[in-house]
Amino acid sequence: MPAQPRLLRESRLCIVGLGLMGGSLALALQGRAAALSAGDSDEAVCSTALQRGIVAQASPDLVLAAQADIVILATPVQTIIRLLAELGGRLKPGTMLMDLGSVKTPIVEAMDRLPDTLQAIGGHPMCGKATAGLAHADPDLFQHAAFVLCATRRTSDACLSLATEIVSALGARAVEMDGARHDAIVATVSGLPYCLSAALAYTAGLRAQDEPAVWSLAASGFRDTSRLAGTDPTVMADILLSNAPAILADVAMAQAVLSELASLVRAGDHEPLRLYLRQVQAYRHAWENESALP
Amino acid sequence: MPAQPRLLRESRLCIVGLGLMGGSLALALQGRAAALSAGDSDEAVCSTALQRGIVAQASPDLVLAAQADIVILATPVQTIIRLLAELGGRLKPGTMLMDLGSVKTPIVEAMDRLPDTLQAIGGHPMCGKATAGLAHADPDLFQHAAFVLCATRRTSDACLSLATEIVSALGARAVEMDGARHDAIVATVSGLPYCLSAALAYTAGLRAQDEPAVWSLAASGFRDTSRLAGTDPTVMADILLSNAPAILADVAMAQAVLSELASLVRAGDHEPLRLYLRQVQAYRHAWENESALP
Repeated sequence: MPAQPRLLRESRLCIVGLGLMGGSLALALQGRAAALSAGDSDEAVCSTALQRGIVAQASPDLVLAAQADIVILATPVQTIIRLLAELGGRLKPGTMLMDLGSVKTPIVEAMDRLPDTLQAIGGHPMCGKATAGLAHADPDLFQHAAFVLCATRRTSDACLSLATEIVSALGARAVEMDGARHDAIVATVSGLPYCLSAALAYTAGLRAQDEPAVWSLAASGFRDTSRLAGTDPTVMADILLSNAPAILADVAMAQAVLSELASLVRAGDHEPLRLYLRQVQAYRHAWENESALP
Repeated sequence: MPAQPRLLRESRLCIVGLGLMGGSLALALQGRAAALSAGDSDEAVCSTALQRGIVAQASPDLVLAAQADIVILATPVQTIIRLLAELGGRLKPGTMLMDLGSVKTPIVEAMDRLPDTLQAIGGHPMCGKATAGLAHADPDLFQHAAFVLCATRRTSDACLSLATEIVSALGARAVEMDGARHDAIVATVSGLPYCLSAALAYTAGLRAQDEPAVWSLAASGFRDTSRLAGTDPTVMADILLSNAPAILADVAMAQAVLSELASLVRAGDHEPLRLYLRQVQAYRHAWENESALP
């Protein structure tokens, strides 16, 4: 087996999937790798990426991935799992595979099954936008974000080291944990917010059928709480189904909290309700104190 | 009865309650009235308002309100209702009363009971911030906001005209409707978003007790969806209890939506879930298309 590059600047890097995440990754890694290429099943996306100089080469198939030293999968989760099965036999020995999928257990399992001539590590940058697609790609998307890395049976020390270098090059900070722990946390901080945001938009939509002024009177509170409801439905269906047990557990817990809150409102006593809402506010402040976000 | 001023610039205006809303109102109306005064039970707030030149006179009691031509109540809802009962016998004949309370039915009822020598109209500007207090007051808070006006038994044409002039001076747009309609809409666009945001913060807080990384991995999606959970608990308890029937109906509907969404996730089929989430996204886009907000 030939010696493989162990530094990003010596590596030919191929990004598979040029949506918001893959496109932002390509923009953020400009000039950091020996060569930057991309695969995207949509030929129009490949053309745009070449025209804008986002990558040096682009192809609607996996030919460029087969030539790369590092392949980063930036497609929806179910596609990542399918691609891992497909790419196993096609990549050069020593190639490093990484992904940006928002669910890790099934991806780590699929990486565990790769030929032992390959290296692989799960990745999930904790950032995003409600807008999808290459047109919204942003080189600063990863700045200051937590970037979870999940080791697999195919993660050597050199692979972990190279993944950490990529995370640093993006301006993010690496956080190592196993897939199950990642998935439980992400259900709470990402899946549940989406589900509650969706419940708000859907309920308001039902109300608006009889009362159109619902839309014109909804202001900044509605805007922020319902922002995630604008997320691409195909991507979200993929995420919810890939992490279903953890998300269902969190939705059930949020339903119990809502029922408790409703009981306090129904009871009509100010002080017990105020104390409950003070705890709500304290939890929100606990996040603000821990967060690096503005 | 002496002739009462019918224009804002001829009127002595007193704002009762110098929190975020009252303070922002005072800043937005600088130089627009013949005189600007305030009442706030907190003497320190009165001192700050005088030192910063936000009002020309301030007092911890209702003496300045008794001298004014227009009195605007900018306190929590339950205090507004108490003040209306108190002020009835203390204001000059012809004085116009308005409020900024976020629930209208009980306030309109209290205004209906005022002596017929007074004028009164319910008001609710559809804007706000998660931060409370005079320190966060902002003269641009009302710019482009919808400002609901609810006529009462004490609303003459002249009173409505003066209220509309005040709304215009704030840079807001007046929307007339009755109190019951206002309260149903506000439950959907403001009470429900708060309750869902609270359920998110509370659930994440419970999860964080066993898994502290919940806070450090929560990013912009969590930030926006949980923003309203940071609202002052005393103010929110007041709002939820004052509009309880409408809010409980909306929470129940959102619970049913969440259960339906959970059923689709549990069933595990991508296409029905994607179609449901596409409707979620369509409702969010319907709001975006109607809204004047960025």
